[in-house]
Amino acid sequence: MSQPSGWQPDWNVLTKTCPSRTSLARIANKWTAMVVIVLSRGRLRFGDIRTAVDGISGKVLTETLRDLERDGLVKRHVYAEMPPRVEYELTALGHTLHAPLQALGNWAEEHIAEVLKAREAYDAGR
Amino acid sequence: MSQPSGWQPDWNVLTKTCPSRTSLARIANKWTAMVVIVLSRGRLRFGDIRTAVDGISGKVLTETLRDLERDGLVKRHVYAEMPPRVEYELTALGHTLHAPLQALGNWAEEHIAEVLKAREAYDAGR
Repeated sequence: MSQPSGWQPDWNVLTKTCPSRTSLARIANKWTAMVVIVLSRGRLRFGDIRTAVDGISGKVLTETLRDLERDGLVKRHVYAEMPPRVEYELTALGHTLHAPLQALGNWAEEHIAEVLKAREAYDAGR
Repeated sequence: MSQPSGWQPDWNVLTKTCPSRTSLARIANKWTAMVVIVLSRGRLRFGDIRTAVDGISGKVLTETLRDLERDGLVKRHVYAEMPPRVEYELTALGHTLHAPLQALGNWAEEHIAEVLKAREAYDAGR
């Protein structure tokens, strides 16, 4: 694949000590994928994200959003209201991650029938 | 995005009970990503994969390969030799997963400089 300018051939996720692996660990995660997919639609409040990502716990969503914010992928907006209103949105960097993560979500939906068939065959052979 | 034939609009990774989420959980994983990237180059023995995915433990690699085999993404070839030779290769289904996972790995390498800068700013603000 062609590499954009700014890419350094020195970064390699397959190397244990390469910092890029810490980024891969963050983005190659089901909760990250779902939160980024949901936030790609626009700025949302915590409760709205939690509703959209069915089954995510408050603790996991808090941690996921904090880690995404720390990595520069999500921006947190705090409004001085009573009670305070907090909204989350993807940064420009976060938006560049939407397509690859959406592709993973699409893959799971498009191929789950084949995956379920494979699991059945595997379990029957045990 | 356009959907291929066979795709069912009923599958939705954002729904907790949808089977497609179990597939997303499997593929949105750093070890899965690295093993699929390495196997995209061709059929490999366990030790070769372990060497290529720097830092993966034998236990995690065993589990990752078994889960990929169960989901129909990896095929295990056992040769009746002494000692027995075992090789792993991506199935046709597994190959369809290479592009999205390679895209994640590329994203991590291409954007790690920005991510590191964001982390530094975040940690300085704490």
